[in-house]
Amino acid sequence: MQAAYWNGQRLAFDPAYPAPQADEKTALVRVSLAGICSTDLQIFQGYMGFTGVPGHEFVGEVIEGPTALLGQRVVGEINFACGQCPTCAKGLGRHCPTRRVMGILQADGTFAEYVAVPAANLHPVPAQVADEAAVFTEPLAAAFEILEQIHLQPTDDVVVFGDGKLGLLCAQVLHLTGARVHLVGRHGHKLELLRPHGIRTVLLPDHPPGQADVVVEATGSAEGLQRAMETVRPRGTLVLKSTVAAEHHLSLAPLVINEVTVIGSRCGRFPPALQALSHNRVSVTPLIEHVYSLTAAGDAAAHASRRGALKVLLCP
Amino acid sequence: MQAAYWNGQRLAFDPAYPAPQADEKTALVRVSLAGICSTDLQIFQGYMGFTGVPGHEFVGEVIEGPTALLGQRVVGEINFACGQCPTCAKGLGRHCPTRRVMGILQADGTFAEYVAVPAANLHPVPAQVADEAAVFTEPLAAAFEILEQIHLQPTDDVVVFGDGKLGLLCAQVLHLTGARVHLVGRHGHKLELLRPHGIRTVLLPDHPPGQADVVVEATGSAEGLQRAMETVRPRGTLVLKSTVAAEHHLSLAPLVINEVTVIGSRCGRFPPALQALSHNRVSVTPLIEHVYSLTAAGDAAAHASRRGALKVLLCP
Repeated sequence: MQAAYWNGQRLAFDPAYPAPQADEKTALVRVSLAGICSTDLQIFQGYMGFTGVPGHEFVGEVIEGPTALLGQRVVGEINFACGQCPTCAKGLGRHCPTRRVMGILQADGTFAEYVAVPAANLHPVPAQVADEAAVFTEPLAAAFEILEQIHLQPTDDVVVFGDGKLGLLCAQVLHLTGARVHLVGRHGHKLELLRPHGIRTVLLPDHPPGQADVVVEATGSAEGLQRAMETVRPRGTLVLKSTVAAEHHLSLAPLVINEVTVIGSRCGRFPPALQALSHNRVSVTPLIEHVYSLTAAGDAAAHASRRGALKVLLCP
Repeated sequence: MQAAYWNGQRLAFDPAYPAPQADEKTALVRVSLAGICSTDLQIFQGYMGFTGVPGHEFVGEVIEGPTALLGQRVVGEINFACGQCPTCAKGLGRHCPTRRVMGILQADGTFAEYVAVPAANLHPVPAQVADEAAVFTEPLAAAFEILEQIHLQPTDDVVVFGDGKLGLLCAQVLHLTGARVHLVGRHGHKLELLRPHGIRTVLLPDHPPGQADVVVEATGSAEGLQRAMETVRPRGTLVLKSTVAAEHHLSLAPLVINEVTVIGSRCGRFPPALQALSHNRVSVTPLIEHVYSLTAAGDAAAHASRRGALKVLLCP
């Protein structure tokens, strides 16, 4: 099959990469669209030491595997859990200690014609959701993960730092609760995307509102993290939404003195995202910047790496 | 009046320090007993740049001030809030941005014959609670603060790191919920204090149980913090109970990947602590190591600074 392969040095197109196999518990999915995520760009910087086919955002069609799924248009959760350990028994398969992760850890991903995904991870896509929207299910689920972790009050003041792809999705999702959401970023044209939703925006270096009840850090930068710390009120909540932020360090003094709650937030369940997409509660397709063919995966990755780039898709 | 004064260099006994004044909103309290806390020891290392009379743990008797309090035996909350700002209006006077803090920030404390305390901060001590127990109200309230911030499940596995004064109180308080509590420390004789309560203990370098639902960091050391991070399960909660930990730094990678919730935890309300003391739900007097006269405040501070020391009290 055709695939883009990351060998630790470069992302190379391979016209004859071995196709994965289906079995009774694993579906073979023909990828219709795949998205390039900031985590992929991190992988190209050495994150996780991954080599193989990257990519974990996709929509596609099941062409082999369990009968019930054959022919279905699907999206898929990215953590392949063992299903048998105590963590899995608690419903926390996304944190299974022996999990593989699609395109990130010991499992080939979606920058390919075909990807193998455990049937348990797949979700059929409602007919009214186009491929171009469905391919956002995974990052949108990551945004909804915040609402699975914290209880937002309708009177809460919420500030999201970062007008990248994830920040734009988080702001929309949190806005659904009725809370007052401000998105803070550096790119006027990206902030503009949220104005029709009634979401307040702040273009840096303008000052974001202080004393926020909930702050979401989605910049992945040390500077963004510092701003987020300064913005959250005493007893407020700071959600760390970016694994890119992993390289930074945090002084604990303000956290203890101001009794701040810090919540690490990663992948989310897919049903909330699929429901929001099927009812048009969020707007994702304006985030698409360009669609490349799989043969131009290197160009696509370069484009996605540009400062300020929004969503770049691959079409096998 | 007699007082111990911290001038930024040393703790000196002053036999003729100016006595504070009462007014219609401020009570003058004659101190019966004062406790030396780790925060005081931090102040002697330069924390907060405080100079003045240190001390924020006390029990005493109101001798001047609002009529309703005259003659009452009292303990007092340490944050002197403005009572008028938006933070105070939310009931978060402990986080009032213009607060003074007894013996820590712009307010003289309790290592003295008399201390001035806003009437709103005082709580009468139930008759059945002896002075030697009542003087623990403030640190015990700080331990109860954890239960005001998080909801502990009766099936939770809880690990408290640190067998110092605060760790011993936290372990007892969390044990009240029915959760399985392990206290991890370096001092067999201190761990021994909790055995009669049925609290499990681990003497380092023995291994604490891993995958805990809730971990409390009460060592204030970088090593303790590292252990705490390694012990909390994915999606678990890490409570930072020590402002001493303020000097350390925390890598965010495991927090985000494992979706850990980190809770900064400082001062607590007094009523839960007073209730527990009056019903003998916790045992505090075995933590008393020595009582010094105020004239020997320097010796008392030196004693409290010894590695492994438990509670040292001052008797004016």
